[in-house]
Amino acid sequence: METLRVELGERSYPIHIGSDLLSRIPSLLPTLAGKQVLIVTNQTVAPLYLAQVQAGFSAFRHDTIILPDGEQFKTLDTLNLIFTRLLENRHSRTTTLVALGGGVIGDITGFAAAAYQRGVDFIQIPTTLLSQVDSSVGGKTGVNHPLGKNMIGAFHQPRLVLADTDTLSTLPPREFSAGMAEVIKYGLIRDVNFLVWLEANIAPLMEREPVALTRAIRRSCEIKAEVVAADEREADLRAILNLGHTFGHAIENAQGYGEWLHGEAVGAGMLMAADLSAREGWISAADVARVERLLLAAHLPVRGPQGMTVDTYLDKMAVDKKNVDARIRLVLLEQLGKAVITTRFSSTHLRDTLVQCTDH
Amino acid sequence: METLRVELGERSYPIHIGSDLLSRIPSLLPTLAGKQVLIVTNQTVAPLYLAQVQAGFSAFRHDTIILPDGEQFKTLDTLNLIFTRLLENRHSRTTTLVALGGGVIGDITGFAAAAYQRGVDFIQIPTTLLSQVDSSVGGKTGVNHPLGKNMIGAFHQPRLVLADTDTLSTLPPREFSAGMAEVIKYGLIRDVNFLVWLEANIAPLMEREPVALTRAIRRSCEIKAEVVAADEREADLRAILNLGHTFGHAIENAQGYGEWLHGEAVGAGMLMAADLSAREGWISAADVARVERLLLAAHLPVRGPQGMTVDTYLDKMAVDKKNVDARIRLVLLEQLGKAVITTRFSSTHLRDTLVQCTDH
Repeated sequence: METLRVELGERSYPIHIGSDLLSRIPSLLPTLAGKQVLIVTNQTVAPLYLAQVQAGFSAFRHDTIILPDGEQFKTLDTLNLIFTRLLENRHSRTTTLVALGGGVIGDITGFAAAAYQRGVDFIQIPTTLLSQVDSSVGGKTGVNHPLGKNMIGAFHQPRLVLADTDTLSTLPPREFSAGMAEVIKYGLIRDVNFLVWLEANIAPLMEREPVALTRAIRRSCEIKAEVVAADEREADLRAILNLGHTFGHAIENAQGYGEWLHGEAVGAGMLMAADLSAREGWISAADVARVERLLLAAHLPVRGPQGMTVDTYLDKMAVDKKNVDARIRLVLLEQLGKAVITTRFSSTHLRDTLVQCTDH
Repeated sequence: METLRVELGERSYPIHIGSDLLSRIPSLLPTLAGKQVLIVTNQTVAPLYLAQVQAGFSAFRHDTIILPDGEQFKTLDTLNLIFTRLLENRHSRTTTLVALGGGVIGDITGFAAAAYQRGVDFIQIPTTLLSQVDSSVGGKTGVNHPLGKNMIGAFHQPRLVLADTDTLSTLPPREFSAGMAEVIKYGLIRDVNFLVWLEANIAPLMEREPVALTRAIRRSCEIKAEVVAADEREADLRAILNLGHTFGHAIENAQGYGEWLHGEAVGAGMLMAADLSAREGWISAADVARVERLLLAAHLPVRGPQGMTVDTYLDKMAVDKKNVDARIRLVLLEQLGKAVITTRFSSTHLRDTLVQCTDH
């Protein structure tokens, strides 16, 4: 097991990463405010890991709520089911919520914890690679509104994150690869040595070997924590976490959300960002080829969806919330391991990239 | 106009109190993050003050949502109406919400501001005496759940509070008196000089004379701000803001919420607290008589509802959230102008008080 401490003053918390953590919950818990716990999970995860987690909280008065699985249930109505369960079971303001599942469960449970009696503690047990490397750091919680994703929420930090690599053994291959896209992103934006390590260890990672996974998750969380902390001083730094996302959102939006997984769209989008960075002369063609090889080894798409036109991309990218004064801003690579957000690229190069990186 | 600055570091904000503030909104506004505003009000307040407030924000792109009036609409569903309006009108994360109304509008709008895109600014324009002296300080926002009041919410500080005493001219007499109960409370718990001033000025206050009201509101907000700030050092101090509330909640709960106004129940409850404090030998019978005279002059009830038995009181008081280990804790008066929360009172005295202070 490795432990990363996210430093946030009074709200600092540990992320424990490793194999077989679910069986050691009692010894890994911090001192909680009270003796009540509500475990929030979904119908997919419950049959796999709920019994183990319930056993881990056997010293507490623990209740469970099992939500339907899927982004379409990340709503105020589902949130209210959690509040109802808490009140029916008379959970006080010293209760602790436990999020057992992927990003949707983490986001909704975190927001329930932020809002229940104006704020109670919560613990994250992310069971997908994406949520282990993304939701573990940053404190973003919330639900969707029919008119916009993640439009309702709060910043609320967990007391503890348990990232058990064993839970990744049951993850469908596409979802595992989608999580790997985010892992690769951390190397590309901030740490070329990590990128080199990923290239050397992509085989054991794809075999879900716990030691390699532990290191990859730890370094990903470290980089995200560095970027989030530094962003308070350097405005806009946090935006580099969106490498590949502007292209990726255009793909998801054009295809309809759910066709491509978010991480798959980000994978293709990162290669577009690399390709455009090379056209601007910032990185070499060999660098782009390295990125492409790593994405392919992670079983990620490296081209946009067949038939998606340049104009469709540009239309979708024009509404991105990172844009300023109607100019498209993109996260590009100054070098491998160093991303910047910029409007300084040629629109001709952008068009060339979009043509080049689309399946025809 | 008087101005009280609530000191909260980066989240400090001014409360402007006085006559004719609504016509001076542009000159009273701080620099807002963006150029968009959503005014949230209700069907009772809109015909009275909305046009003036809209005119005050004419330099902004302002939208309005008019909610139904009443505590029964302080729900997640109503909250969602606000989010829908914000998204339909494409409000960005630099928007500002304006709460124009009483406590319900303030609480729900504040929570909408806390949660919209994980937090935007809001301005409070409280139009009831209760909300001017209670909701202006403390940052509590939220909505009710069918299983409990104020169970869902956030701490979120306003950028500005405008307490226009002219808006009190349209307040029904019972609601005005209910607000006065809270004003009197501030004198009783923390400032005997303010209590003396209230005794001397109760006539102009009840005539809603703006200069007297301005002073009463200002001092009430000051005391609440002192208590809330000091509570971070002295645990439990904030509880003294609940003088009369444990008795009052028992009355409201037994009668059904809405029969007695909250402030009316608190008025009767404060006399019970004074009576019990006298039985414990902390204050004199003359002190109790002074409290009773002031409450009567404010047209507040000084007896509990007819027919409510001692056992009903004790039952309802047994579930109060201030209790520790099943012992009833009460806010009592060590002297006029000094309240404490305590379990150190005789249960015989409590019964005697409940018999004495109930209408038979």
